[in-house]
Amino acid sequence: MTVHKEVTVTATSTESWEDAALNAVNRTETTVENIQWAVVQDQSVQLDSPEDPQFKTKVKIGFEVEE
Amino acid sequence: MTVHKEVTVTATSTESWEDAALNAVNRTETTVENIQWAVVQDQSVQLDSPEDPQFKTKVKIGFEVEE
Amino acid sequence: MTVHKEVTVTATSTESWEDAALNAVNRTETTVENIQWAVVQDQSVQLDSPEDPQFKTKVKIGFEVEE
Amino acid sequence: MTVHKEVTVTATSTESWEDAALNAVNRTETTVENIQWAVVQDQSVQLDSPEDPQFKTKVKIGFEVEE
Amino acid sequence: MTVHKEVTVTATSTESWEDAALNAVNRTETTVENIQWAVVQDQSVQLDSPEDPQFKTKVKIGFEVEE
Amino acid sequence: MTVHKEVTVTATSTESWEDAALNAVNRTETTVENIQWAVVQDQSVQLDSPEDPQFKTKVKIGFEVEE
Amino acid sequence: MTVHKEVTVTATSTESWEDAALNAVNRTETTVENIQWAVVQDQSVQLDSPEDPQFKTKVKIGFEVEE
Amino acid sequence: MTVHKEVTVTATSTESWEDAALNAVNRTETTVENIQWAVVQDQSVQLDSPEDPQFKTKVKIGFEVEE
Amino acid sequence: MTVHKEVTVTATSTESWEDAALNAVNRTETTVENIQWAVVQDQSVQLDSPEDPQFKTKVKIGFEVEE
Amino acid sequence: MTVHKEVTVTATSTESWEDAALNAVNRTETTVENIQWAVVQDQSVQLDSPEDPQFKTKVKIGFEVEE
Amino acid sequence: MTVHKEVTVTATSTESWEDAALNAVNRTETTVENIQWAVVQDQSVQLDSPEDPQFKTKVKIGFEVEE
Amino acid sequence: MTVHKEVTVTATSTESWEDAALNAVNRTETTVENIQWAVVQDQSVQLDSPEDPQFKTKVKIGFEVEE
Repeated sequence: MTVHKEVTVTATSTESWEDAALNAVNRTETTVENIQWAVVQDQSVQLDSPEDPQFKTKVKIGFEVEE
Repeated sequence: MTVHKEVTVTATSTESWEDAALNAVNRTETTVENIQWAVVQDQSVQLDSPEDPQFKTKVKIGFEVEE
Repeated sequence: MTVHKEVTVTATSTESWEDAALNAVNRTETTVENIQWAVVQDQSVQLDSPEDPQFKTKVKIGFEVEE
Repeated sequence: MTVHKEVTVTATSTESWEDAALNAVNRTETTVENIQWAVVQDQSVQLDSPEDPQFKTKVKIGFEVEE
Repeated sequence: MTVHKEVTVTATSTESWEDAALNAVNRTETTVENIQWAVVQDQSVQLDSPEDPQFKTKVKIGFEVEE
Repeated sequence: MTVHKEVTVTATSTESWEDAALNAVNRTETTVENIQWAVVQDQSVQLDSPEDPQFKTKVKIGFEVEE
Repeated sequence: MTVHKEVTVTATSTESWEDAALNAVNRTETTVENIQWAVVQDQSVQLDSPEDPQFKTKVKIGFEVEE
Repeated sequence: MTVHKEVTVTATSTESWEDAALNAVNRTETTVENIQWAVVQDQSVQLDSPEDPQFKTKVKIGFEVEE
Repeated sequence: MTVHKEVTVTATSTESWEDAALNAVNRTETTVENIQWAVVQDQSVQLDSPEDPQFKTKVKIGFEVEE
Repeated sequence: MTVHKEVTVTATSTESWEDAALNAVNRTETTVENIQWAVVQDQSVQLDSPEDPQFKTKVKIGFEVEE
Repeated sequence: MTVHKEVTVTATSTESWEDAALNAVNRTETTVENIQWAVVQDQSVQLDSPEDPQFKTKVKIGFEVEE
Repeated sequence: MTVHKEVTVTATSTESWEDAALNAVNRTETTVENIQWAVVQDQSVQLDSPEDPQFKTKVKIGFEVEE
């Protein structure tokens, strides 16, 4: 039997939506082990400072927990 | 870079759906800092004791975490 | 074993969406017993007479029936 | 034949989601006539200044246009 | 006033989707009290080893927390 | 020409989601004829008494009515 | 205050989806008064006898009930 | 690079949902150029005067704008 | 036991959405037997040549396959 | 690089929705290799012969193809 | 009180979905002020000339309007 | 009249979600002609080997078939 839990994390990047997703995963790795996947929920661009658009990706991160 | 996490919380109120949402936020503030927003997922009325209807609001609460 | 049925009812109120939901429940109670809950499906404002906006709530009402 | 157009407007209120919806309608009335209805799309609470929560309602506003 | 929180947990079973759901609940009970319900989000069959299909159920588990 | 109507019914079982669906159909047969199908809307587990989990299935039941 | 109820009805026609919708409304009028609208839920073509395709429309029919 | 904008328009017809969609497009052509497509969002029948049912189609209309 | 497979096919017609759906079914019949039903997924109007609007229907076509 | 394709298959069983899902997978294995997973899309009960209910499961079956 | 409006804009790019989103925002800035965010609705690749794939992003663009 | 069919294909890339989408299209071109578009269904990151994240894109690929 395997058991997985999920957390929803949103992160930003000035580069791309991929980079923002990896930022979310990296930050989560500081508190969670055995991360298996990250599924995109939303993508957007934060434009409150137009000359510095922030690509924002919300991901559901799945990680395996011991039985 | 900013990173946000989300938790899903449901609370009730005898007053209104707004009050129920704020009850969910207030309860979450006891364990979480930097709450930025709460987005309504569902609203319902609990009627098992009809003379005392409970307005119930489920919210996703977003809070900022340190990088 | 418990069995529940559902009906979809929409009602209005000049006060609030909560009041409109309770109006839907009260009207349904005249023909149905053992109402347990009412879940919001839609909320809108009827504005054909702008000076008298009507708050409109559509709810699914669940009631328990004897086995 | 009748023809309707729709615009999506979000407004806030310190009072309630109903009040926020009416604020959206009132602001739209300054540029649009024959508004018939406003359907709720989302409801949330803005909490960046926690002691002053803002109830936010996004509505689709439908208005009739001449053929 | 009552307050509920939710966690999303996925578990497997060689028997059935029901058994997989109960495995998810049982594992969660080791860290969470007052579990009230589990709502099915997805059901699938893992077939990377075809002779040993794993029934997989993802559930949202709701539990009551003290005010 | 054929005409079908639908009712939404939820029932429970200590055995399985299939059994709960059939309980919903059987209860509906006491008041409705010509039932053709039942489509699953939701599945959950009621856990307020953990040692006695109740599998709960909500189905839309379609039945043919005379023209 | 106005109160509306809804029923879900599916009907067929050899002509068109519009005709099938009107068949559903006409059949419902034999048991329900004050029908206000019918909203399309699904449209399909029944082809078990290919030379005689049946256009099938499922509608939610809304009708006003006395307060 | 191409750029498209969208508007949401609802129109009626006593004939059919197709005719209602074309009415929405024709009305929009009086104020918008380069219309490329219209995607159906909803279809319904207005029945407040039963002997004169109005077929109603809501479409999203896409049009190309100069870069 | 019965087994069904599905394919998604889009076709056009200058007449109607019904005709477009039947065009999709007829084309599919050239390569597939035992077609049982076609369920509408989308309907749109292609307007790149405005004087010759094309009604476009996307259908999921279900056909029975031998066990 | 890995590449996966999907097919949508529906099968029945007099036993359970799990058994129906496995029937869909087994039938697909006669024409497709490297099946990795099957995700449930719908579950229903066919009741045209009430004394012999058929549990019906629609699954999306994913299989790996050579690059 | 703050009021936001939304427009839906689709743009293309030979580079990436991010670039296409920024193209949509830049084009909109020529007619709209105070743009705050752009939320992705769809992403696709236009392949009618296969050797020159166009990445296409549809975004909802939110902008603040004076009260 | 034009007729289009669709297939659902998922591919990976160590570079980006765009590259993964093009990999899915290129692989499909080996067996299918007249590909017109690819619409993104899901995007995720495979992390079972964390130091080598795989960007995964699922696309629906539409291709024109002869009448």
